[in-house]
Amino acid sequence: MLDLNNIYRASHILKDVLRKTDIIFAPKINPNCGVYLKTENLQTTGSFKVRGAYYKISQLSDAEKSRGVIACSAGNHAQGVALAALRHNIKAIICLPDSVPLSKLDATRSYGAETCLVEGVYDDAYQKAVQLQEENGSTFIHPFDDEYVIAGQGTIALEILDQLPDVEQVIVPVGGGGLISGVALAIKSLNPKIQVFGVQARGAASMLNSIKDRQIERLDSVSTFADGIAVKEPGKLTFDLCQKYVDDVVSVSDDEISAAILMLIERQKMIAEGAGAVAVAAAMFNKVPIQGKKVVSLVSGGNIDVTILSRVIKRGLLMSGRSGILNIELIDKPGQLKGVSAIIADHGGNVIGVHHERANENSDVNGCYLRIELETHNFEHIEEIKSALTNAGYRLR
Amino acid sequence: MLDLNNIYRASHILKDVLRKTDIIFAPKINPNCGVYLKTENLQTTGSFKVRGAYYKISQLSDAEKSRGVIACSAGNHAQGVALAALRHNIKAIICLPDSVPLSKLDATRSYGAETCLVEGVYDDAYQKAVQLQEENGSTFIHPFDDEYVIAGQGTIALEILDQLPDVEQVIVPVGGGGLISGVALAIKSLNPKIQVFGVQARGAASMLNSIKDRQIERLDSVSTFADGIAVKEPGKLTFDLCQKYVDDVVSVSDDEISAAILMLIERQKMIAEGAGAVAVAAAMFNKVPIQGKKVVSLVSGGNIDVTILSRVIKRGLLMSGRSGILNIELIDKPGQLKGVSAIIADHGGNVIGVHHERANENSDVNGCYLRIELETHNFEHIEEIKSALTNAGYRLR
Repeated sequence: MLDLNNIYRASHILKDVLRKTDIIFAPKINPNCGVYLKTENLQTTGSFKVRGAYYKISQLSDAEKSRGVIACSAGNHAQGVALAALRHNIKAIICLPDSVPLSKLDATRSYGAETCLVEGVYDDAYQKAVQLQEENGSTFIHPFDDEYVIAGQGTIALEILDQLPDVEQVIVPVGGGGLISGVALAIKSLNPKIQVFGVQARGAASMLNSIKDRQIERLDSVSTFADGIAVKEPGKLTFDLCQKYVDDVVSVSDDEISAAILMLIERQKMIAEGAGAVAVAAAMFNKVPIQGKKVVSLVSGGNIDVTILSRVIKRGLLMSGRSGILNIELIDKPGQLKGVSAIIADHGGNVIGVHHERANENSDVNGCYLRIELETHNFEHIEEIKSALTNAGYRLR
Repeated sequence: MLDLNNIYRASHILKDVLRKTDIIFAPKINPNCGVYLKTENLQTTGSFKVRGAYYKISQLSDAEKSRGVIACSAGNHAQGVALAALRHNIKAIICLPDSVPLSKLDATRSYGAETCLVEGVYDDAYQKAVQLQEENGSTFIHPFDDEYVIAGQGTIALEILDQLPDVEQVIVPVGGGGLISGVALAIKSLNPKIQVFGVQARGAASMLNSIKDRQIERLDSVSTFADGIAVKEPGKLTFDLCQKYVDDVVSVSDDEISAAILMLIERQKMIAEGAGAVAVAAAMFNKVPIQGKKVVSLVSGGNIDVTILSRVIKRGLLMSGRSGILNIELIDKPGQLKGVSAIIADHGGNVIGVHHERANENSDVNGCYLRIELETHNFEHIEEIKSALTNAGYRLR
């Protein structure tokens, strides 16, 4: 049975091979409480997953090590297992769905793992991994439902308590539940007064639903860009541990996650992936009762594809009123663009994109259509510009 | 006369109010040496500048404090002075050119400073600041050519020596030279064997030129997106200190800086601004003799406008072969896009943008023009796809 002892053992193994990541005060995230970030996005491999994978692999017997390990993952677990296997000098095979972004594939390979691209989605890659495991007798490293893996993730809690002894609440991302199980077990064992909250993406709230209904429930499908926590069903071990130790599980929308990622970039100068930012989103949008408390939001990882990152930044700017889009119908005659530009400039808007089109399915034959992308201060600023344009006789849609 | 003593005094003042930023091992930056990052982008206000500003303001007399401070900056110095004044409970006026990005203006205001937007460029804002200073008798806080400011920046060196005692080389961004003056003075005073290198943007290499010619030289103009180090002329104090203590000053191109920013995002999960990334670019592209050495690249700041960040990411991907653009001339008949798409897919390229245009000034009347943006592994991958298209009879431009 997993207990604090296991987490201290894991900590002893990990302390010389992995980073004790910094805790950073981040007051802008929510001015009504003291938010600190535990920066596991700055961990080796870019996420906490290497903790569990490394500890698990360190505990294999020599015979098991000689047969190597296998894992199935499109992301952080893949890199964690690959690096842990490399450091233990054993063979690792990682099965990935062939839809994996090239950057993640390259990163996994860079840690020396053999990759096996499987046509289809995660479940197909999982089937292939199980088949390979049966064929070659290697050890399957589960991404979350494993006592050693959970103990490894729990070492983060020991660091938090050391770095911020008077913490009152810890907010943790939840996918399959491995991370929060280890963290909550350690924290509640040492100081039951500290509250532990879990956060899921709204489109993949399997643990939230399961806890509410007091039994494991499987989602038919998941929908979120936070791929690291897009899990259809919690683990058996993790479900039990969450029921026992976690105070509450809440959810955040993809738009809230985007806003949190943008906040982390602009104010904290760090990259979080979708899954990594949910605990920050929960603090920003008051999803848990954090008023006046000293809070740690765990930033679990930073492995986001840069093309997705660009889209998230764009979305986050729109969501926070920092950019706006104006769709204007114009009569097709000279000087129209000039008139619109003048009004925008007079009100301090900064034009960053213009799309001007004549033939538009929604415009009159002699009309044309102008789409302007603007950099703005906030939503009030956008409304001010829109009013000025409307007052000058322009038709906004 | 500035000496190590001043830097220890500054360190004593700063240690309880600013962050001792983490040093992070970053082996991917250059596999032929051991690169560590001193992460001043994670400093309060997002850059090291607050160190010098805070120490300077802390040393003002009560009479001076009562008259407030004034500064001129479009970026990190503005935020540093604003925060330091806020903490000392004194008034700060910051003059900024009116072309400043809205995000930087908002950040400066968020630290409670009064902002004065001046029509024109930096020099105009500077004139305004000098005029205001003469009118109201406040203290002008120079961004670099000031002994207290230099001493404050030098505290970074004490932290580096504490965090990585066996460091062999320190690489430092150089604009006006305040940061490197303090760092080099501290390091050479404590261990002259450690080498200190400065890095400038190629389009603003005023210190490099001045050192080479052994006299201060002023550039007529500067051209780089690394606005934090786009300085036309080094300071008198800083020039003397650099001549005395710095081993060499080198330069990097804007494309190299973009590649370094992208590397930091993808591998280190952190945001650096252009000026903040030059010491990483120097390590990546072997601009200094770092082979086999234990090296610290100082990441001086992370205050980059997100719209510029998006462009830098795009440029960095192109520069590293991680994305490519194909311009293809097609005969305007059905099925052409299908043929091209099939070849790209067969070779593992991932299409992320398509622009298809009939009337193009460079194409035949019955031709059309296809521009495809691709996600790719590397330059060889792009060439492979291009060859396949050429071999199938498509005309690439």
